Amino acid sequence: MVKRTCFEDAQCPIARSLDAIGDGWSLLIIRDALGGRRRFSEFQKSLGTAKNILAARLRALVAHGIFELRPASDGSAYQEYVLTDKGKDLFPVLVALRQWADDYLFEPGEEYTRLVDRKSGKRVRRLELHAQDGRLLRRQDTELVRVP
Amino acid sequence: MVKRTCFEDAQCPIARSLDAIGDGWSLLIIRDALGGRRRFSEFQKSLGTAKNILAARLRALVAHGIFELRPASDGSAYQEYVLTDKGKDLFPVLVALRQWADDYLFEPGEEYTRLVDRKSGKRVRRLELHAQDGRLLRRQDTELVRVP
Repeated sequence: MVKRTCFEDAQCPIARSLDAIGDGWSLLIIRDALGGRRRFSEFQKSLGTAKNILAARLRALVAHGIFELRPASDGSAYQEYVLTDKGKDLFPVLVALRQWADDYLFEPGEEYTRLVDRKSGKRVRRLELHAQDGRLLRRQDTELVRVP
Repeated sequence: MVKRTCFEDAQCPIARSLDAIGDGWSLLIIRDALGGRRRFSEFQKSLGTAKNILAARLRALVAHGIFELRPASDGSAYQEYVLTDKGKDLFPVLVALRQWADDYLFEPGEEYTRLVDRKSGKRVRRLELHAQDGRLLRRQDTELVRVP
């Protein structure tokens, strides 16, 4: 990506997140991993990216503790990239990106994938933000405060 | 960013979102705009980015319909970058990134900002994903299906 200030020491959690996974490829790799892919060749086939770029991104994701390398589950010589809890917990980020795209980046009737509740098969509701007492919060019901 | 396949025609909503806002800078610009910044100079000061890079990103965000350009609200000659509804609706993406960072990228006790409910001043709850019937869904309670 374009050169930019490193935000790793920034106070802003959003900037820190983007430092770890904000390069464009990383979230697509994580999406694929949440979908069950584990091997370099599987990611490469899915993403169509150059091997050197994919290798660099996977190395960075391992360094960030988002993936861990494991011997292949089938006993072969391959290694597998397995999401850690830290990696799996990016699920809400991907859901938020998906729901925004559903609203704004698809034509009505255009074919695509849908995130559904396994039990009912019905589309999930929008992500919801609640107050501690349960009230549903809109953006304008929230504010940022500096801590402590 | 590194050269990559353009995902604009991709079926995957996540890939499309990242095409629009996945370059690393864009979400920080949108974060600043949600925080009240409107002018080129304000974004530049906040982000510390080179003017040409910021100008290119803002142009792209306007082209994507995430910002619109308006005459300055104070009647001066400046133009302001104002988030459209499409832009404002990226709020959940930023909340998801923030909450992930809170969990994994900060040391205990490290100073940072916190997203709170305006009314109570208390920290908001984690983003929640619910089924149509209201059940709280974890990642493993969901699946992707191709539509139609």
